Amino acid sequence: MNKQAPADRLAAFEAYRDRLNHRILEEKSHLGIKRFFNLDAAAYRDGALDRRTKELLGLVASMVLRCNDCIDYHLIQCVDLGFTDDELDEAMNVALVVGGSIVIPHLRHAVDTLDLLRARTAERENTKEGEALH
Amino acid sequence: MNKQAPADRLAAFEAYRDRLNHRILEEKSHLGIKRFFNLDAAAYRDGALDRRTKELLGLVASMVLRCNDCIDYHLIQCVDLGFTDDELDEAMNVALVVGGSIVIPHLRHAVDTLDLLRARTAERENTKEGEALH
Amino acid sequence: MNKQAPADRLAAFEAYRDRLNHRILEEKSHLGIKRFFNLDAAAYRDGALDRRTKELLGLVASMVLRCNDCIDYHLIQCVDLGFTDDELDEAMNVALVVGGSIVIPHLRHAVDTLDLLRARTAERENTKEGEALH
Amino acid sequence: MNKQAPADRLAAFEAYRDRLNHRILEEKSHLGIKRFFNLDAAAYRDGALDRRTKELLGLVASMVLRCNDCIDYHLIQCVDLGFTDDELDEAMNVALVVGGSIVIPHLRHAVDTLDLLRARTAERENTKEGEALH
Amino acid sequence: MNKQAPADRLAAFEAYRDRLNHRILEEKSHLGIKRFFNLDAAAYRDGALDRRTKELLGLVASMVLRCNDCIDYHLIQCVDLGFTDDELDEAMNVALVVGGSIVIPHLRHAVDTLDLLRARTAERENTKEGEALH
Amino acid sequence: MNKQAPADRLAAFEAYRDRLNHRILEEKSHLGIKRFFNLDAAAYRDGALDRRTKELLGLVASMVLRCNDCIDYHLIQCVDLGFTDDELDEAMNVALVVGGSIVIPHLRHAVDTLDLLRARTAERENTKEGEALH
Repeated sequence: MNKQAPADRLAAFEAYRDRLNHRILEEKSHLGIKRFFNLDAAAYRDGALDRRTKELLGLVASMVLRCNDCIDYHLIQCVDLGFTDDELDEAMNVALVVGGSIVIPHLRHAVDTLDLLRARTAERENTKEGEALH
Repeated sequence: MNKQAPADRLAAFEAYRDRLNHRILEEKSHLGIKRFFNLDAAAYRDGALDRRTKELLGLVASMVLRCNDCIDYHLIQCVDLGFTDDELDEAMNVALVVGGSIVIPHLRHAVDTLDLLRARTAERENTKEGEALH
Repeated sequence: MNKQAPADRLAAFEAYRDRLNHRILEEKSHLGIKRFFNLDAAAYRDGALDRRTKELLGLVASMVLRCNDCIDYHLIQCVDLGFTDDELDEAMNVALVVGGSIVIPHLRHAVDTLDLLRARTAERENTKEGEALH
Repeated sequence: MNKQAPADRLAAFEAYRDRLNHRILEEKSHLGIKRFFNLDAAAYRDGALDRRTKELLGLVASMVLRCNDCIDYHLIQCVDLGFTDDELDEAMNVALVVGGSIVIPHLRHAVDTLDLLRARTAERENTKEGEALH
Repeated sequence: MNKQAPADRLAAFEAYRDRLNHRILEEKSHLGIKRFFNLDAAAYRDGALDRRTKELLGLVASMVLRCNDCIDYHLIQCVDLGFTDDELDEAMNVALVVGGSIVIPHLRHAVDTLDLLRARTAERENTKEGEALH
Repeated sequence: MNKQAPADRLAAFEAYRDRLNHRILEEKSHLGIKRFFNLDAAAYRDGALDRRTKELLGLVASMVLRCNDCIDYHLIQCVDLGFTDDELDEAMNVALVVGGSIVIPHLRHAVDTLDLLRARTAERENTKEGEALH
């Protein structure tokens, strides 16, 4: 459940995530942890399966394991990679059926995040268009 | 852990839940997801077991799976159905023993929610009594 | 999934469980572990909620947490306490909806166990009747 | 971990699964449970995402939730739908990274199942070829 | 994810935890629940293993089960018991490898908590030094 | 629950594990999966924490996540590293309290495995002594 001002939620998540990832990877710099983060990044790169499919796998895995931050991260990637709402609804439906009603609060969170992401994209495009007019 | 002003927590949860459920069921309206929500609602209706027993099953399942939003939802139903604090304490004790100390933060959350629900009921009854005096 | 000869499965589970519980409680006898087992037993005794309701809570908690041995244990108690198949089906339906399709293999296991328990009860009653005829 | 004679494992799983599904859906026939099974089947049909992608989502969800029977079920579908070993290895790698080393025993199980499925397919094709020669 | 003002997070957690523990143990006072809390406290006392080792076990168990409040509680104890950052990084690396990338948001939370704890300790020592100068 | 002839269980687990690990690492050889296995092995090596402490962390993490194969693996290491039964009982007690009664079937499994490991060690020492007499 997220009751924060919607406009700021995505930005707050991204800033928090960046700050702590920097703290972990650049400052603490534990070799095992850094290698784990590298393996994690590599798992989603194009290979025998393309990156699009793998990000969708990451999204569904995050939903059935019920981790809102992981859901947000993979939704950001999925929107970036051009998935439509209909496609994402289908993936979230698989997660709901596999994981059961205990997933519902995370489905609500995911739908809220997806709406924020679409709004942000629209705003950015408006800004670009506005700039292009000058 | 909830550190929000207690007076607003239940109302914020219910408003958030209503807004997103409306978004999911009325606007997005994915057939599989809608059917899942219907199945979920149907599972708690009177049948070979009565609704009271089933809501208690839902509460304990939510606690051992450690989902605060699900706990809040089932506690609202359980209070509505007239369960006493002693009965709910016993159910929460079963959840604690089955799920272990990792459930304790959710037990704290549940007790906090239950207190807010009792306070809200008392306030509503005071209002009714006040109105009845006029 | 259980692919063992059905006739022996319940007996094998009970013998294994008894042997290891004896090993843990009587021989090893770690104070904390013994106390935990006592707390666990006490959680299902009659109190503000009756034992019947609590065993049903234990069954549903075991199903959503997906533990076959725990499911078997609580089903043995539930059959002993006189629950009908219709009542147990309703409880298992709650577990299925809360926990999702990942619970299905455990639902199959539970139905298999319940059938074995009904067959064993029938057999025992036949034996008693046979003895009563003499 | 599976220590059964490899030749029989897949057949035993399929026979057990069919027997209990028949018992649940045809004989017990609880309306809620039947509808859940229908929803589950529907979730993997072609839609905004194709069936292939959805079966892969089901496989990865089953691996991170660590359910061997669910893994076997989805692997059977994935092999049927023509996924190569390289593609499945990539999906299993995502599951391993998301779910951690606790997934490794299920990765071993999945690789064993996949090998059995490839062997069964090869055997069936040999039989067909043999028959075609007559 | 915690986006609250860093200075207040630890204090808010401790106050909330104390208030609800008091409500549960002193006011509600369910016998089974009280005994569970006693068993929980006893599990970390010096015995065949020392308290230091057990708190580290509690920290790693909390991380793989992904409970931020439990992580915070055990980190407070671990810092109190003199663990260095290098030692705690190694324990968190074990949790990350066992539990997978789904643990990463909890690793970020843990690192943030650890930084707050170190800052609080430094502040308290400065205050003591300042007082000692008078 | 393990109902196999006790004498063979450890050997069967080790042979199965070796066969599939060889299949995964030497034959399939997916780069990401191999690197994950390397990271996993590295996480338990001596460092700021010694290997003994880390294997105990691995054991408790495996118990609260309820994975029998992982429990067996870490128990083999723990016995090798000289942990006494009293020390292991204490670690298992922490796992039981954190994870709850749902851990009990895995506690029984762990105690059974530990007994088999002690018997195997005794047998090997007898053989050595017998050989030394010649």
